[in-house]
Amino acid sequence: MREIFYWTNEHMPVLNYYKKQAQKEKFLKNKKIGVVLHLEKKTAMLVQALIEAGANVYCASCNPLTTDNKAAQYVKSLGAKVYAKEFETEKEYYEYLNEIAKKDLDAIIDDGADLIQLLHEKDYFDNKVYGACEETTTGILRAKKLESQNKLRFPVIAVNNAHSKRMFDNVYGTGESALLGFLNATNLTLSGKNVAVFGYGHCGKGLAKKLKGLGAKVFVVEVNHKDSFGYHGIHKALEAYFEGYFVIDSIEACRNADLIITATGNTKVVSKKHFDAMKSGVILANAGHFNVEIDLEFLERNSSSKKEITESITEYVYKNKKIYVLAHGRLVNLAKPHGQGHAIEIMDLSFSIQFLSLIYLIKNNQSLKNKVIPVPEEIDVNVAKKFLELHDCKIEELTEEQKDYLNF
Amino acid sequence: MREIFYWTNEHMPVLNYYKKQAQKEKFLKNKKIGVVLHLEKKTAMLVQALIEAGANVYCASCNPLTTDNKAAQYVKSLGAKVYAKEFETEKEYYEYLNEIAKKDLDAIIDDGADLIQLLHEKDYFDNKVYGACEETTTGILRAKKLESQNKLRFPVIAVNNAHSKRMFDNVYGTGESALLGFLNATNLTLSGKNVAVFGYGHCGKGLAKKLKGLGAKVFVVEVNHKDSFGYHGIHKALEAYFEGYFVIDSIEACRNADLIITATGNTKVVSKKHFDAMKSGVILANAGHFNVEIDLEFLERNSSSKKEITESITEYVYKNKKIYVLAHGRLVNLAKPHGQGHAIEIMDLSFSIQFLSLIYLIKNNQSLKNKVIPVPEEIDVNVAKKFLELHDCKIEELTEEQKDYLNF
Amino acid sequence: MREIFYWTNEHMPVLNYYKKQAQKEKFLKNKKIGVVLHLEKKTAMLVQALIEAGANVYCASCNPLTTDNKAAQYVKSLGAKVYAKEFETEKEYYEYLNEIAKKDLDAIIDDGADLIQLLHEKDYFDNKVYGACEETTTGILRAKKLESQNKLRFPVIAVNNAHSKRMFDNVYGTGESALLGFLNATNLTLSGKNVAVFGYGHCGKGLAKKLKGLGAKVFVVEVNHKDSFGYHGIHKALEAYFEGYFVIDSIEACRNADLIITATGNTKVVSKKHFDAMKSGVILANAGHFNVEIDLEFLERNSSSKKEITESITEYVYKNKKIYVLAHGRLVNLAKPHGQGHAIEIMDLSFSIQFLSLIYLIKNNQSLKNKVIPVPEEIDVNVAKKFLELHDCKIEELTEEQKDYLNF
Amino acid sequence: MREIFYWTNEHMPVLNYYKKQAQKEKFLKNKKIGVVLHLEKKTAMLVQALIEAGANVYCASCNPLTTDNKAAQYVKSLGAKVYAKEFETEKEYYEYLNEIAKKDLDAIIDDGADLIQLLHEKDYFDNKVYGACEETTTGILRAKKLESQNKLRFPVIAVNNAHSKRMFDNVYGTGESALLGFLNATNLTLSGKNVAVFGYGHCGKGLAKKLKGLGAKVFVVEVNHKDSFGYHGIHKALEAYFEGYFVIDSIEACRNADLIITATGNTKVVSKKHFDAMKSGVILANAGHFNVEIDLEFLERNSSSKKEITESITEYVYKNKKIYVLAHGRLVNLAKPHGQGHAIEIMDLSFSIQFLSLIYLIKNNQSLKNKVIPVPEEIDVNVAKKFLELHDCKIEELTEEQKDYLNF
Repeated sequence: MREIFYWTNEHMPVLNYYKKQAQKEKFLKNKKIGVVLHLEKKTAMLVQALIEAGANVYCASCNPLTTDNKAAQYVKSLGAKVYAKEFETEKEYYEYLNEIAKKDLDAIIDDGADLIQLLHEKDYFDNKVYGACEETTTGILRAKKLESQNKLRFPVIAVNNAHSKRMFDNVYGTGESALLGFLNATNLTLSGKNVAVFGYGHCGKGLAKKLKGLGAKVFVVEVNHKDSFGYHGIHKALEAYFEGYFVIDSIEACRNADLIITATGNTKVVSKKHFDAMKSGVILANAGHFNVEIDLEFLERNSSSKKEITESITEYVYKNKKIYVLAHGRLVNLAKPHGQGHAIEIMDLSFSIQFLSLIYLIKNNQSLKNKVIPVPEEIDVNVAKKFLELHDCKIEELTEEQKDYLNF
Repeated sequence: MREIFYWTNEHMPVLNYYKKQAQKEKFLKNKKIGVVLHLEKKTAMLVQALIEAGANVYCASCNPLTTDNKAAQYVKSLGAKVYAKEFETEKEYYEYLNEIAKKDLDAIIDDGADLIQLLHEKDYFDNKVYGACEETTTGILRAKKLESQNKLRFPVIAVNNAHSKRMFDNVYGTGESALLGFLNATNLTLSGKNVAVFGYGHCGKGLAKKLKGLGAKVFVVEVNHKDSFGYHGIHKALEAYFEGYFVIDSIEACRNADLIITATGNTKVVSKKHFDAMKSGVILANAGHFNVEIDLEFLERNSSSKKEITESITEYVYKNKKIYVLAHGRLVNLAKPHGQGHAIEIMDLSFSIQFLSLIYLIKNNQSLKNKVIPVPEEIDVNVAKKFLELHDCKIEELTEEQKDYLNF
Repeated sequence: MREIFYWTNEHMPVLNYYKKQAQKEKFLKNKKIGVVLHLEKKTAMLVQALIEAGANVYCASCNPLTTDNKAAQYVKSLGAKVYAKEFETEKEYYEYLNEIAKKDLDAIIDDGADLIQLLHEKDYFDNKVYGACEETTTGILRAKKLESQNKLRFPVIAVNNAHSKRMFDNVYGTGESALLGFLNATNLTLSGKNVAVFGYGHCGKGLAKKLKGLGAKVFVVEVNHKDSFGYHGIHKALEAYFEGYFVIDSIEACRNADLIITATGNTKVVSKKHFDAMKSGVILANAGHFNVEIDLEFLERNSSSKKEITESITEYVYKNKKIYVLAHGRLVNLAKPHGQGHAIEIMDLSFSIQFLSLIYLIKNNQSLKNKVIPVPEEIDVNVAKKFLELHDCKIEELTEEQKDYLNF
Repeated sequence: MREIFYWTNEHMPVLNYYKKQAQKEKFLKNKKIGVVLHLEKKTAMLVQALIEAGANVYCASCNPLTTDNKAAQYVKSLGAKVYAKEFETEKEYYEYLNEIAKKDLDAIIDDGADLIQLLHEKDYFDNKVYGACEETTTGILRAKKLESQNKLRFPVIAVNNAHSKRMFDNVYGTGESALLGFLNATNLTLSGKNVAVFGYGHCGKGLAKKLKGLGAKVFVVEVNHKDSFGYHGIHKALEAYFEGYFVIDSIEACRNADLIITATGNTKVVSKKHFDAMKSGVILANAGHFNVEIDLEFLERNSSSKKEITESITEYVYKNKKIYVLAHGRLVNLAKPHGQGHAIEIMDLSFSIQFLSLIYLIKNNQSLKNKVIPVPEEIDVNVAKKFLELHDCKIEELTEEQKDYLNF
């Protein structure tokens, strides 16, 4: 059983590098760290790094359905306290979070900000957490809301927004693993398929690129709206156009698509009018964080029949058309039984950022303000630099003459 | 359980179309058909088509390791006689073939020509088989050898060589499913990887194309040798060059590669001198029919340690380097536990050719000679035409003026 | 002669749309506008739009070598005053700029900020220009320097930084036209070539993408330095890695490259140590704004022979190696005799931004401060939206429910 | 002037290699060779090779419009007799061919078989030509017709059908140069364009591949017809489908296309019903050998206006729609003023095959029959091998064990 963790560890050299450094620096020594992430193989490596650098780790899952018992068992064997199990109930999920919240944690790593939120409630008011590192866009928005209400009680580092995370995890990680989810769930080919991608943000861009690379024809649907990173849907759509994708409206996309993948971060982007427009036999998958992008409630209520083809394919008959939904509208990259999530190398980047951001929080707990703060540029750059170095890539330094030229 | 077969069936519309036609024509009525193929989901659909068109079917597997018990059970429930099970022994495998060979079969579908060979041995000399359809290059070569020795006792249709099979099954089928095998087995990304493809035939071409599409850097190794289809390695290498792949020798390829995939149809293309040149951490996979392309025997004998990381990853330590072998050097696209083989749509093409070739054998059994014969052009073209039609593609007819022009 | 302008005009529908709007609004009526741009076909269309919207236009070129006499003649025939000619001298160039500077201009469009700079010198101190629109990164940096010294006398709109300009002009425009420059100048193929791209900014990214699309193998060279848009070379390099390019140092790149293209915005990125490492027969081209990226001075002084093969290919023999330089190290996309610069559609975007930014300056001249200001988001978005609409692309609006969801 | 030939020569190392060999072998010594090809830069190199190997060369053009005076002048300076000039009339063209036919030639190189045909007419019946090498599909078909009528008076080598020619010249050569023709003629971008490719043979395949690489969306039109190489349109269409192109009928293609490129080798593939379906503003280009693919006669007769926008763009107004035709429907890769034809490296392959085939004819003139014969496999393979070697590619040899394995 341990061998798979050995394999995973072998392919996370950046995290290993920083772990060794941390073992010398000892900032994590005896610190109590709460880790609330999808508890699977790569996460186990982050937990292991924290423990080997001296921390006491308390783990829970950030989602009732994504715990991998083997990973839980593995980190337990290393000394972590684990409050998670495969297929826990919603009730258990919140009980587990509360357990962790009571542990007088020094710092936390969160994914979705459920623990951050909890630590702002009355019961935990005496906790003096140094701060939190947050993995997702959603969690960052929740923390910012607290900040805007002057309620944020500790600094929150916006890990998701680091370049070394967002440019790779969201683009290459999601793109590749979502297509893998589709291929594994269906045993179909992508060659020749008409595929509509709803949302051309970081994830959608990754999806479209890989889809084209695998021989699919890509249709992009975008909206007249500016995203939380300041990119406007109109410019994203224009980029999609110049990349050679069809930029069309969602109804037209549904009329043509063999496969529809949502990656918008929004709700009900596939709804009644879309179901009405679809071809029989269409396949729907979601690559966005929450399972709200496809309006399954409507489909449930209005289908004449529903059939579970496999664990990850559901057939609805709606107005005499067959509509197939993958992974119950949840993240298709994690679709059971095959979903393994993002590639290990990608998580080596993301979790190295988490690891160093956490240490930064602890080192600088006196000086940091109770705000949502970016990952320090130094960390963001160093992690990428170390990754390049460990993958045989080379980077140059500017000469003095060149520096002068740029500053003229 | 049956639902997965329903799903598979839904995505094989071409085979379904010809099944319905065959039900009317009744050529298969009460015919005894031996089917020796990898007994998995898509094969089950071919067996079902034969049964529903009136045939009595006797199934065995063409490989001791590739039977899927669910598929076996399914075709049994339809009335097929099944002589196969998951993880049968070599001995059982041959016993099963002998069982089938005794059934006074009217015609057979074979994959690798083991049954064809058996039917040429003394015990079965009284059998008057109408003929055989052969799925693979290897099987065709074996049948041709019998033909050249004037020993061939019935016509053998070279199904593998049909355009509708070879141009798609071997290129798109193998390309996509081999990469899937890698991605599933390792949870690594292909983006940024240096990948050496040994052999730039139909399979290698498919691999290289998909690898590039997924962001890998591709190195191609070819040989100064003409293949059995009349293509010369030199011209294939030149094509690889113009496609933008590195065309280098195998030692240089091994020095640079993160991943090496063999698809040559030859033996020991990765051997001692290659192991000597590899980087530590390299991953080896085979996409060729037999597990002889990587010289694992050598590695077994000369490694200082061997470790089974998972069912599909083995680590050898050879001269202080870690060398990882996927799926024990067997076809990586079938690597357990995830391997599902080729995409369903691809097999819809291949098995439609099988189905119609078999009917052709039976219809024309009086007139066909005991030779290896090509799939009739009409069948080869019609299957592709029907596929296009059922996937919303359009083809034009020439005008009279255009026909005249071409014939000038 | 006029037909080519008709053709160009037909393919700039966005600019035409805003021209018609401006004709109704009359903000440009009788305004004196200085236009200092590469005076070629597409620029002529911008000048025509200004004139037809009521302005009096004074044209000069922003570079002594890039005036197209036909374009000059054409805008003259429409009533523009032209201070430019093909192959003007440096001295004439500055005389022309001074002529324009004296015209009591209301507003200007500049490319490189030479006119902006001039208007800050003593002689023109009484001019009360409403403001300037600047096309380039370089020009913006110069204006920012004036601003930081509190010397900026009028607002400068940073047209280059608009998304609708930078994401398309710099990526797709430069990428495609630079490769065209190479192909036309050499009559060689890109298929199979080893190409080193120095600099993976917007231009380098476009170059690499198109190179890969045309079958070249791409090597990327990046530096440990943050660019003026806030992107760090390390992250750009990592992106190049995941895209499947080789990320190597410049010496290694020179050892392998058949073609080297610079797009760094820096000086001497190809210098002595690089020439020393190159293969004989290598071809050098520059896609950066200034002809300083390749150290030609060094090559001139240290070559044993120099030969002008054609107007756009120079052969140097350096240490017994043949080194070919395209377009004398100047922008290869404008290399004579074939260079036509960016595609018309791309300039439709860029010049529509210029056109609307200029009107914005004039409309809001009372309220704008003497700073470098961004293109108003509304203009930036509207131009892209109009382009999409006129190219048959569709964009969706969010529902109320979706807006609420995003604001939770 | 000579420098451009120096440049061209530098990039034809394979031809140079065989030239040197031929100089030693002396088979061409004092032989009279007729060369009827597009008389441009690369052809001049072939003529030079023949002359330097000892031959007396008589040149004419195979097309009244494709002679480059500089190339003509250059080969004249080397001693060739030239019967061609830029923009010769049809009458002059035939007079020139007759001049050459009278020269008691030993062997000829032809393109389109006009000279071959002429040498079969009464006047030249006493000529005892050793044989001819034919460059094109069309010419080969004409020679085969003579053969089938038992009229062929000397052997004709089907140079076009060599792998080293057809797999590269027709795919990569035509694909790249045709797109270059479009880009140069129009100054438009291909990014985002809807492009219909009529004909998915070798040329069409090359076009589609490069178009996709440059960001266009590709629509493929194929026919239910088997080509002269034995490939069926149905299989080609299916391949296009799996590559991710839209396979649609020609009317649907015309409704959507921004650009239509024909490469069918057939007549009137774009005709009335297509013009009727096109969008206003559509651009038509031909990449097939003859200017019969687009029915321009119809357009001429039925347009309400016609305007020459530039030398290479004609605007027709047909039923109130603007239809633009490039290069008067002739080969767009040669479109004046920019067209330079295929890349030099590609012609290095094609002309090396020509050169060696010609020598083969002369060496073996006693034994060859008066038939259309293929390029000897040895030549076909050796040229490709030499090309690979001279471009730093490596090829492996099989081991004895591997040879045995393949022969089992």
